[in-house]
Amino acid sequence: MTATTWVPGAAGSTHDVDHLPWGVFTRTDSDDAPRVGVRIGDFVLDLAPVAAADVRPETQLFEAATLNPLMAQGRAVNAELRQWITDLLTVPSERGDVEPHLVPLDEVTMHMPVEVGDYVDFYASEHHASNVGTIFRPDQEPLLPNWKHLPVGYHGRSGTVVPSGTEIVRPLGQRKNPSDPAPVFGPSGRLDIEAELGFLVGTPTSLGERVAVADFDDHCFGIVGLNDWSARDIQGWEYVPLGPFLGKSFATSISTWVTPLAALDAAWVDLPGQDPEPLPYLSLEDSDRPGGLDIAVEVVLNGHVVSRPPYSSMYWSPAQMLAHMTVNGASVRTGDLWASGTVSGPVREERGSFLELSWGWREAFPVGDDERIALEDGDEVVLRYTAPSVSGGRIALGEVSGRVLPARIG
Amino acid sequence: MTATTWVPGAAGSTHDVDHLPWGVFTRTDSDDAPRVGVRIGDFVLDLAPVAAADVRPETQLFEAATLNPLMAQGRAVNAELRQWITDLLTVPSERGDVEPHLVPLDEVTMHMPVEVGDYVDFYASEHHASNVGTIFRPDQEPLLPNWKHLPVGYHGRSGTVVPSGTEIVRPLGQRKNPSDPAPVFGPSGRLDIEAELGFLVGTPTSLGERVAVADFDDHCFGIVGLNDWSARDIQGWEYVPLGPFLGKSFATSISTWVTPLAALDAAWVDLPGQDPEPLPYLSLEDSDRPGGLDIAVEVVLNGHVVSRPPYSSMYWSPAQMLAHMTVNGASVRTGDLWASGTVSGPVREERGSFLELSWGWREAFPVGDDERIALEDGDEVVLRYTAPSVSGGRIALGEVSGRVLPARIG
Repeated sequence: MTATTWVPGAAGSTHDVDHLPWGVFTRTDSDDAPRVGVRIGDFVLDLAPVAAADVRPETQLFEAATLNPLMAQGRAVNAELRQWITDLLTVPSERGDVEPHLVPLDEVTMHMPVEVGDYVDFYASEHHASNVGTIFRPDQEPLLPNWKHLPVGYHGRSGTVVPSGTEIVRPLGQRKNPSDPAPVFGPSGRLDIEAELGFLVGTPTSLGERVAVADFDDHCFGIVGLNDWSARDIQGWEYVPLGPFLGKSFATSISTWVTPLAALDAAWVDLPGQDPEPLPYLSLEDSDRPGGLDIAVEVVLNGHVVSRPPYSSMYWSPAQMLAHMTVNGASVRTGDLWASGTVSGPVREERGSFLELSWGWREAFPVGDDERIALEDGDEVVLRYTAPSVSGGRIALGEVSGRVLPARIG
Repeated sequence: MTATTWVPGAAGSTHDVDHLPWGVFTRTDSDDAPRVGVRIGDFVLDLAPVAAADVRPETQLFEAATLNPLMAQGRAVNAELRQWITDLLTVPSERGDVEPHLVPLDEVTMHMPVEVGDYVDFYASEHHASNVGTIFRPDQEPLLPNWKHLPVGYHGRSGTVVPSGTEIVRPLGQRKNPSDPAPVFGPSGRLDIEAELGFLVGTPTSLGERVAVADFDDHCFGIVGLNDWSARDIQGWEYVPLGPFLGKSFATSISTWVTPLAALDAAWVDLPGQDPEPLPYLSLEDSDRPGGLDIAVEVVLNGHVVSRPPYSSMYWSPAQMLAHMTVNGASVRTGDLWASGTVSGPVREERGSFLELSWGWREAFPVGDDERIALEDGDEVVLRYTAPSVSGGRIALGEVSGRVLPARIG
């Protein structure tokens, strides 16, 4: 990083010019339609008027209400736009024209950044999958036989992916304890989080096309924080044999800021190791970068950090997930979202769900002076993410927050 | 039905004015953008110019490339449009203005009728679920404990829902027989069909809203034929614990014609019976019509009828599926699609999948002078559907066809 930004307070922060996450915003005091901005320091740069003044062809991309048109432009255009924005924010002579279009963060409302096509959720943490297996099937091998051969995943509900800040109404549904004679209906009593990362498709593919592991960068636009809210009691009753459904489909929250892949160039690290060697279509050998991401996650409940899951502990890489998802010829669309599954590290303080933190609801865990086994009405969860930046500092990815509201009965 | 259509050949056919399915078409010899038409006899009525000549406000709905804007209008507008079209096609004085806009079916290309939001696939046939259970778990109860308490379902991939006629490339993937030491990669050797019905959402809901069983008609716009292509060997290896994924996501075919709910008023029949009584939110008691649909399905393989599954044998009603899908507050969007799951009747000749017809790939079944256990390259499957019409005859719902192409290796 040679250039220094002129934006007050941004240089050396978690939102320096080495980050530049994308989002969709409105000025809180305006009736404007939502449009595209980029974050620098504690400001949003309102790109449409700046691009219009420069007579740039991308102006209409920035006037869109979602990032999808921008994401569809592909890697080369996005790299050029990143350079243009970096120049705007670092070349002193640009300041006069650009500074009037910096809007303080506390004067904007952030919106859903993308129109999500399909949403796929993986299960890529060995520690999480092992914990869940041990809790639910204590007498068996914690991992099922397929787990180390393919990144296990399933489709979730894209229509209920909501932006950070959306309040989460406790879902109603059927549940049945093994000792109950019949299922009962009511509010979930085991509401949980899943601390995850989400990956967004930029460049789409055609039906029948496969994305090789090495082509990940050509198709992945960027990364969001993601909380896959889960009603464990509903899920536990419904999920055989076709997988989770209503226990997950009521809400999935994502960050309103999308960190471009280029901002994570310094965050790639080797995976912990894969044994057995995956089949050739999942091999990382032809890829020019390692498969892991050194992203630190914090789970904050009512203001208290209750867990610090390390994304670097994940077993499967996001590039392997994309290669697997398309190996059968399934196409991807701009705006498709796939998520990592719960991020859990090897020790208790690194578990990414309440199911694990309470070890199957058996041991309350501390939350400041309070304690929890599952989410209670009024609880607020914030997921925070940081990663090494290309200039040697750290960037803070978009956080994901949500507060639990009581069930709507009747 | 009092009025008789003036359209040549249409009166008394499976596409009389008591049917009027919607579709999206282009004239084969034109470069026009796809737009909305309605089928009458062996013609497509090109609605946009007729509506424009009538100076109707719906003209732009008919100029759309999908049915979604029309579907979003809601039940009252759609009922009025149905009456308007019926008048056009039955009042003799309309003939002069309307007939020039009838395009013979063999001069049009049909397109994907809707932009699908979320796609959910249920598993609502007791015979199918019992057959699958018996084949895969011969020593256990065929139905899992939750099956009669809730309509089991899961999310499928909406981006690979394709229109009838789309060729289906045999998917590649991992599979592992229990006796194999490790999974192998290659073309699926157990490619299968699932003969289903699909239901389309017209009027959307908000996050947190529930659709009662009795409100089905307010939200369901119409019905399509649906073939949920399945690679059983891929599915068998991947599906625990999160459900089917790549074994299904390569393609789901739907009919290009959408039969409006109003055309099925005479097709509703009682369900075979539900025991135990479902929980109140799934009760049919407050609904003013029975839960079953008397739709006859034919599975045609390479020109030979190989099965005749009766939709009337389904255990769960489509209204119960919609109520279940939204009971946790999950919203639905215009264009969301949910499917019934494989339709299988109680006897062998009524099974809706090759898995069942071959009883777990053990017994080849006859196809004319040939036989099959699973789909072979070059095979063509056509699903046909008929139902009683309100005028005492029968309507033929949109058929679903697809031919299998060899896997693309390398």
